[in-house]
Amino acid sequence: MKLKFAKGNLLKSVNIVMKAVPSKTTMPILECILIDASSSIIKFTSNDMELGIETIVDGTIEERGIIALDAKIFSEIVKRLPDGYVTIETNENLETIITCGKARFDIPGRSGEEFSYLPMIEKTDGIEISQFTLKDVIRQTIFSIAANENNKIMTGELFEIKDNCLKVISLDGHRISIRKIELTHSYENKKVIVPGKTLNEISKILSGEMDDKVNIFFTNNHILFEFDQTKVVSRLIDGEYFRVDQMLSNDYETKIKINKREFLDCIDRATLLVKEGDKRPVIINIENESLKLHMDSAMGSMNEEIGIEKEGKDLMIGFNPKFLIDALRVIDDEIISIYLVNPKAPCFIKNEEEDYIYLILPVNFNSVR
Amino acid sequence: MKLKFAKGNLLKSVNIVMKAVPSKTTMPILECILIDASSSIIKFTSNDMELGIETIVDGTIEERGIIALDAKIFSEIVKRLPDGYVTIETNENLETIITCGKARFDIPGRSGEEFSYLPMIEKTDGIEISQFTLKDVIRQTIFSIAANENNKIMTGELFEIKDNCLKVISLDGHRISIRKIELTHSYENKKVIVPGKTLNEISKILSGEMDDKVNIFFTNNHILFEFDQTKVVSRLIDGEYFRVDQMLSNDYETKIKINKREFLDCIDRATLLVKEGDKRPVIINIENESLKLHMDSAMGSMNEEIGIEKEGKDLMIGFNPKFLIDALRVIDDEIISIYLVNPKAPCFIKNEEEDYIYLILPVNFNSVR
Repeated sequence: MKLKFAKGNLLKSVNIVMKAVPSKTTMPILECILIDASSSIIKFTSNDMELGIETIVDGTIEERGIIALDAKIFSEIVKRLPDGYVTIETNENLETIITCGKARFDIPGRSGEEFSYLPMIEKTDGIEISQFTLKDVIRQTIFSIAANENNKIMTGELFEIKDNCLKVISLDGHRISIRKIELTHSYENKKVIVPGKTLNEISKILSGEMDDKVNIFFTNNHILFEFDQTKVVSRLIDGEYFRVDQMLSNDYETKIKINKREFLDCIDRATLLVKEGDKRPVIINIENESLKLHMDSAMGSMNEEIGIEKEGKDLMIGFNPKFLIDALRVIDDEIISIYLVNPKAPCFIKNEEEDYIYLILPVNFNSVR
Repeated sequence: MKLKFAKGNLLKSVNIVMKAVPSKTTMPILECILIDASSSIIKFTSNDMELGIETIVDGTIEERGIIALDAKIFSEIVKRLPDGYVTIETNENLETIITCGKARFDIPGRSGEEFSYLPMIEKTDGIEISQFTLKDVIRQTIFSIAANENNKIMTGELFEIKDNCLKVISLDGHRISIRKIELTHSYENKKVIVPGKTLNEISKILSGEMDDKVNIFFTNNHILFEFDQTKVVSRLIDGEYFRVDQMLSNDYETKIKINKREFLDCIDRATLLVKEGDKRPVIINIENESLKLHMDSAMGSMNEEIGIEKEGKDLMIGFNPKFLIDALRVIDDEIISIYLVNPKAPCFIKNEEEDYIYLILPVNFNSVR
């Protein structure tokens, strides 16, 4: 095999497929990037058996062939090569020579035969959205998946398609994040649970441009994201997702409008009095046209007041500050609305259109004070 | 006590004194910043008993007083306050109220009585150099002090003043770094060993501007750096420094001139084949007008060639690539000269004027290949 690439193209493609290379595995072949130039195009593939990425690379095939190269070494070499044209050449012993300018690397390769190609996904019922939107939706929901694997379903996000609406939901037992996207037309209804890891990795590859599109296809066990010259295939998480609709409510006793930046900075200041791991709540006192925030810890106490618009009753309620911060950080609106019922009922941060809904459970602060 | 500051000034001063706050100590008072407004100026002091910093802070004294505040909490509060004016107020119980806009923090303070002030340094025989130069000299030598404390003297740098020349030297048993600075006039001869930690911390505070000056004073046990509104006092390391002059030589069998960037990038590429902790040498073969670089490891091999200007004999020699990289990174010259004798003798990287001299011991590569 003999291939030639502009260094920039090669680096871009290697960075894409690196996202599906497992850091630890018992199968050394999975630590490789497969370079397949057996036909008239050059394809790089990586696959950790949960998540697989395939990308077409711009380059010249001087001699066809296939080789699997250790992903870490290969990517390090490409990263540090000088700018210019890079040649990758292999011989029958799978020895691989990578040259660029006067630099030459000799590294061992592996036969591509043991490599697991991506599963074939039948492309029916695909939806199309912009890369910008998908990246944004992931950013605005991914923080509230559960970190530990005790409940597998909580480590993923629900992607639900209903007519012309895509709804993405994550929850971890303390909070729920919901984002709704209007699609350009109606599709067959679908509900799948996508692993959080897949979403994290894909959002690193997505361009984030409004004009760049991504097509998403579903089978019973897999989801396929197709964009630019890249395919990302992931297993889905098995099981029935939580019935989130039952947990939502439009009733409220108190509604406030508050400047998001002011509120976020204020909670952020309060948390400096809390040591990592300490579950001390921030106490919010809504009274007339102001929100008073109070934090108390062994290090000291903090009080601050923010002007608000209020409808309904006064209220005192406690929250884990991290949960408020996580949600406020990803909301783009300058002024946000918060809906509350009583100190034991969840609060909702949402906009009029309900493009986004963040539900956060309060904390019993009487026991702490 | 009641003081008022513009937030920017306060933050700048806190960041300066934070550099001498120990992260771990058995004396809690050392974890504090002392705020002394007992006279007509406001001074912040920190002191870990090796290194002490005192800085004058721009602010208004509404009521005189002294308080010691936990440095970590205090600095976090100042960092996260909104922009505006910050008031620090204490009462007779040492309770401290920090307010800014509508934010208010209540934290406990400590009496300043237990606090160790900086030692008085008599200011005679001071030398003056630019902050730019001092910062630069530290950057260009600090990497070759010894990391471990087995030999205390190696953890510091020699500051030697001889007539109108300041020489700064560090060494770790494998290499020596020397920088010479011409002073504006002659001073009394001096030789002191300054702790590496002091130099690391001070270089973070120095402005790095050519026009900003720093005055350096010496006593038998201490060094004092005075600049802007700040004093940094450090203990010196006791003992006799190594007699470095005996290790230097102007004889050579081979002299090469090489593009620094090309050489550095090339060694950097070679090291990707070396796992952390592996002491594999890079082998350099000087032949006619070229330098061939070779690296061999379990991961693969690398060869590269760089054009050079050569005087004298051909030579093959091995080096720990890290030592070459460390020196090359801090040299500003585009073209550098390297002087070699034989595969077992140290190499010297230096310029004509010997402003800088880097001595690096070679590695016996026959045993490794």
